[in-house]
Amino acid sequence: MLITIKKTAKAEEIHALKQLLDRNGLGHRVCLTQEQTIIGLENNPSEAISKEIKEQSSVEEIASIDTPYKLASLRYKPKRTVIEIGNVEIGGSKVVLIAGPCAIESKEQLESIAEQLVQSGTSILRGSAYKPRTSPYSFQGMGPEGLKIHREAQKKHGMLIETEVMDVRDVALVAEHVDILRIGARNMQNFDLLKEVGKCGKPVILKRGISATIEEWVLSAEYIMAHGNHQVILCERGIRTFENATRSTLDLSSIPVVKQMTHLPVIVDPSHAAGRKDLIPALAKAAIAAGADGLLIEVHDNPKEAKCDGKQSLLPEELKSLAQDLRKVAEAVGRSL
Amino acid sequence: MLITIKKTAKAEEIHALKQLLDRNGLGHRVCLTQEQTIIGLENNPSEAISKEIKEQSSVEEIASIDTPYKLASLRYKPKRTVIEIGNVEIGGSKVVLIAGPCAIESKEQLESIAEQLVQSGTSILRGSAYKPRTSPYSFQGMGPEGLKIHREAQKKHGMLIETEVMDVRDVALVAEHVDILRIGARNMQNFDLLKEVGKCGKPVILKRGISATIEEWVLSAEYIMAHGNHQVILCERGIRTFENATRSTLDLSSIPVVKQMTHLPVIVDPSHAAGRKDLIPALAKAAIAAGADGLLIEVHDNPKEAKCDGKQSLLPEELKSLAQDLRKVAEAVGRSL
Amino acid sequence: MLITIKKTAKAEEIHALKQLLDRNGLGHRVCLTQEQTIIGLENNPSEAISKEIKEQSSVEEIASIDTPYKLASLRYKPKRTVIEIGNVEIGGSKVVLIAGPCAIESKEQLESIAEQLVQSGTSILRGSAYKPRTSPYSFQGMGPEGLKIHREAQKKHGMLIETEVMDVRDVALVAEHVDILRIGARNMQNFDLLKEVGKCGKPVILKRGISATIEEWVLSAEYIMAHGNHQVILCERGIRTFENATRSTLDLSSIPVVKQMTHLPVIVDPSHAAGRKDLIPALAKAAIAAGADGLLIEVHDNPKEAKCDGKQSLLPEELKSLAQDLRKVAEAVGRSL
Amino acid sequence: MLITIKKTAKAEEIHALKQLLDRNGLGHRVCLTQEQTIIGLENNPSEAISKEIKEQSSVEEIASIDTPYKLASLRYKPKRTVIEIGNVEIGGSKVVLIAGPCAIESKEQLESIAEQLVQSGTSILRGSAYKPRTSPYSFQGMGPEGLKIHREAQKKHGMLIETEVMDVRDVALVAEHVDILRIGARNMQNFDLLKEVGKCGKPVILKRGISATIEEWVLSAEYIMAHGNHQVILCERGIRTFENATRSTLDLSSIPVVKQMTHLPVIVDPSHAAGRKDLIPALAKAAIAAGADGLLIEVHDNPKEAKCDGKQSLLPEELKSLAQDLRKVAEAVGRSL
Repeated sequence: MLITIKKTAKAEEIHALKQLLDRNGLGHRVCLTQEQTIIGLENNPSEAISKEIKEQSSVEEIASIDTPYKLASLRYKPKRTVIEIGNVEIGGSKVVLIAGPCAIESKEQLESIAEQLVQSGTSILRGSAYKPRTSPYSFQGMGPEGLKIHREAQKKHGMLIETEVMDVRDVALVAEHVDILRIGARNMQNFDLLKEVGKCGKPVILKRGISATIEEWVLSAEYIMAHGNHQVILCERGIRTFENATRSTLDLSSIPVVKQMTHLPVIVDPSHAAGRKDLIPALAKAAIAAGADGLLIEVHDNPKEAKCDGKQSLLPEELKSLAQDLRKVAEAVGRSL
Repeated sequence: MLITIKKTAKAEEIHALKQLLDRNGLGHRVCLTQEQTIIGLENNPSEAISKEIKEQSSVEEIASIDTPYKLASLRYKPKRTVIEIGNVEIGGSKVVLIAGPCAIESKEQLESIAEQLVQSGTSILRGSAYKPRTSPYSFQGMGPEGLKIHREAQKKHGMLIETEVMDVRDVALVAEHVDILRIGARNMQNFDLLKEVGKCGKPVILKRGISATIEEWVLSAEYIMAHGNHQVILCERGIRTFENATRSTLDLSSIPVVKQMTHLPVIVDPSHAAGRKDLIPALAKAAIAAGADGLLIEVHDNPKEAKCDGKQSLLPEELKSLAQDLRKVAEAVGRSL
Repeated sequence: MLITIKKTAKAEEIHALKQLLDRNGLGHRVCLTQEQTIIGLENNPSEAISKEIKEQSSVEEIASIDTPYKLASLRYKPKRTVIEIGNVEIGGSKVVLIAGPCAIESKEQLESIAEQLVQSGTSILRGSAYKPRTSPYSFQGMGPEGLKIHREAQKKHGMLIETEVMDVRDVALVAEHVDILRIGARNMQNFDLLKEVGKCGKPVILKRGISATIEEWVLSAEYIMAHGNHQVILCERGIRTFENATRSTLDLSSIPVVKQMTHLPVIVDPSHAAGRKDLIPALAKAAIAAGADGLLIEVHDNPKEAKCDGKQSLLPEELKSLAQDLRKVAEAVGRSL
Repeated sequence: MLITIKKTAKAEEIHALKQLLDRNGLGHRVCLTQEQTIIGLENNPSEAISKEIKEQSSVEEIASIDTPYKLASLRYKPKRTVIEIGNVEIGGSKVVLIAGPCAIESKEQLESIAEQLVQSGTSILRGSAYKPRTSPYSFQGMGPEGLKIHREAQKKHGMLIETEVMDVRDVALVAEHVDILRIGARNMQNFDLLKEVGKCGKPVILKRGISATIEEWVLSAEYIMAHGNHQVILCERGIRTFENATRSTLDLSSIPVVKQMTHLPVIVDPSHAAGRKDLIPALAKAAIAAGADGLLIEVHDNPKEAKCDGKQSLLPEELKSLAQDLRKVAEAVGRSL
């Protein structure tokens, strides 16, 4: 259940409502959106208690949502969310292209790649300054210096930029530097991080965990929303299965499933799913055909020397050529790119 | 390694070669194709023994194939296989539509569905007379009577027909009645069945097992080929993962992977993968965009009363409408439907 | 629901009952056990129809079993099944040791291994004459000759013997030669094979498929039972997961789960699960501690030259030593070995 | 490779070494243990560069470890780690029992449970003040107040206490209050958290992620060790598979595998793996038989009212009775409890 609080409600009235909820053992979360105060309950209460809640002086209306996720639910908000950032729309009729290197390695590297990407219709430049690595001995990212390089590239080329944030203590700094924050697959259930980006005021790309069910993924989006940030973009990037021809198994079924469950936009990262560049074209086309609102693709101009994920990175010219094929598929399903 | 035997070789010369292979512990299989006798070795032998093999009087040539599958390998036969059946081509530029009910339930049911399918561009009518069912108490299919009904529908509507075969003892009868045999996911590693359809002379659709790696799947195709039947059509139908929003997880990455490994055509069954009809359009479009040579879709005109898989069956008119959307995607990737 | 037919019922009375079931669309299977005729229905019918069934002249009693499996259900038969073969009991207080080579390779090999196994408390000699192999070019087993060798070893050493059957056409021959038939993991849902061994009159070891849920596994046992053979021994051998340190992931939770669902004995094959011999001792001890009624362990006296599964085979002396450790664990959980 | 730095080395000498490593693109991490400074390299360098490294004035010795994990490797430290905390040893001959409620709910609840656990041989009282919950609307733990309650229980009953830490910002506070920190499955690859507990000076229980390979799990332990904390206890708690009879699939093979890879102790949590209390006895016995150094078991004295995981919690008297059975199994494998 979702309870909408009257704009005129006084703190003491809201407090009385909270006490009512606590007395009845109803797990809940107060969510301050830009326009409203909403209280989400984990489960729908009995009819009698629902009535009592509705009669509270602070309550404007209640909505019974029978899914564990409420704010993300298509039933709660039947109009699809379109996230506008500058002149880019995510979730609109145009399929958005997000591309760039896995890690930001140097000013020269990012500059060079960014310059070439502008020509392929890339709207958003990806790049990570903080890198989650399986081994403590691997390159861990450039950190704050990488953020600065990213920001400069943004200014110079007029593209939006997105980057990963891993540590709650970095959220404010990262949000200051980039247009979109990204939560990686390994942190999809790092709930403190979700709460923190829920307060950051910037759009968030939320990658699906490699062993997360679709419902768990949407519940992680709900965490961000319940802490005040409704600009969530879901990103399918493959799940872990027994198949080892690919790094992960890209689950394109999740796109239509998510579209039925939620009003949020969903994009696809074929690069991390495949783990090998030769499959990217087929998977990128399939993603758009399945209804994806965008693609997140790794591009590097010197993949052999890349500090990470070289094997799965396209060359800038390969992306340019692929973009033309993707445009045809986008048009075949009534969209543009 | 694959050894091609001279057409003029005498039985005793071939016998000498076999003794040489046995002496060196080289697992092998004699494969009689329509034009040639080929002997496949599990592994490539040492250089010295390779030389000895090559010098045998019965040997025309040897080909070192370093994959466990040989005849199916794109390296062995770089030209993609196009299977021609009547006026239908599988693996050519046209994407093939195979549709029909899960089980053949009655003459009336199949007739009614077939009639409507003709209009949606369906080339091949699916339908099963033998049904693999998890429970022994479930409907097990109409058996031989179902085969006859299928055959009559074929004659009346001019469509090709395909059906599942489960029991080695039924292969000859089934091959007599239908144009294409189908091996279900549960039987992908029923090696005796693979050997038997390897001798049946009719094209075979080989479904991927729900927990089969792509390599194991191709090796099962190799079984059929090594027993003399090179008309194998691979069919991706989803793998078993932890995700339960869908019945299986459709692994569309397998299409480009298979196309790099083999020369065989590959089709996709979105119905069994999804287990729910609302996802079929998105998955069917994605399959074509990813490079599938055909689709296998369940259609029923009274899904609520269907003896199996009603929830995942489209209505004939839904398929007709979907076919128009699929045609656009096919054209966007340079094919037709 | 399970319907027990009166011993005095006439064919025409039973026929009338079947018509009643068909009219109401109730999937069913007639099961002839040694003492009784039982009809299993896929689902429990409505109260009204249940009453009608009960009143049929042929019906002795009906039992509502609300699980998909009926004959295997612990609710239907609350007394645990103990299978007696010669002087060996499977499912009794003694944990049974089944050991031997993966494949029967020659008379000498089997003789030599059998001789050494007698001393380690092995009751049943395993060995396969028919081998399911992923590659068509691998050794496929010695076939009928292997069966004969197995039989001779049985006579000489006084052990029981068990072997795999893969092809429905071989069931009669295999059942004639060995004491226990084995259905391999790949054939767990080869329903025609299950039906055939259901009629063979010999005990059957049913391995769990590598991607089978526990319920599907029990339903496959139900297939065998519903075709007249109640001597089914379930065998856990690991499931396919993402983990690759082991060939499969041994699911020991399945033992207590199966013991709650069914009255059937359950044994464990740590060799195929692990795929490496160093883990066998730990897994074998854990299996007994978890409640397994027996162990199926691969033993070879020359693992390096073994035609299959050498890496996971213990030496006969290693099994002898392990058996002493296993005995202690068996005693700690109130059993013997 | 692991490089041990001389105790007498000067900062500038170490700096010169780091430059050498950087110049050669060798990923590395400086690790300050209590006695030594060690530098881990992601991969082993070429022979020439190894020689150059060895000749650096700051280098005492180098050890080539060919696994991705170094400090955790059994090859690097062949003596098994025994972690001593007060009078409790983890990794010694005695199997350690850790038990308590999932969440700390109130002073009364924890007191009552602790009192009863003392009698069952429980050495360490579990309990979480911070709860990772899939839904934002669920109870999220008592926070700092829960830590205080935990600490009081420790003082009163003389047991050690352990609790989960989720947020890097809480590490210091948690380390101040409890004897052992726990990293939950969802945070196994929260690398910033691993780094932070690497500096906390208290032993850490590291749960295996539900989709983590054993190698990834050990690499996460390596993160903690590479940041200075060598007191890591691995905890198997089940992996996510397709099977749904249990919440996760307990992978007991991981115990002997981990024991071969590392010198670290490993314990097992059967409660979270099974998700249902009826399986705990079988799995706990199996874990000890497989070689586990301890068990982590959820206990609640009013499971029906538990704020989380009630279904999988034993009653205190059930644990007491189980402990007697566990003791017998421990003795059968040469240990005590």
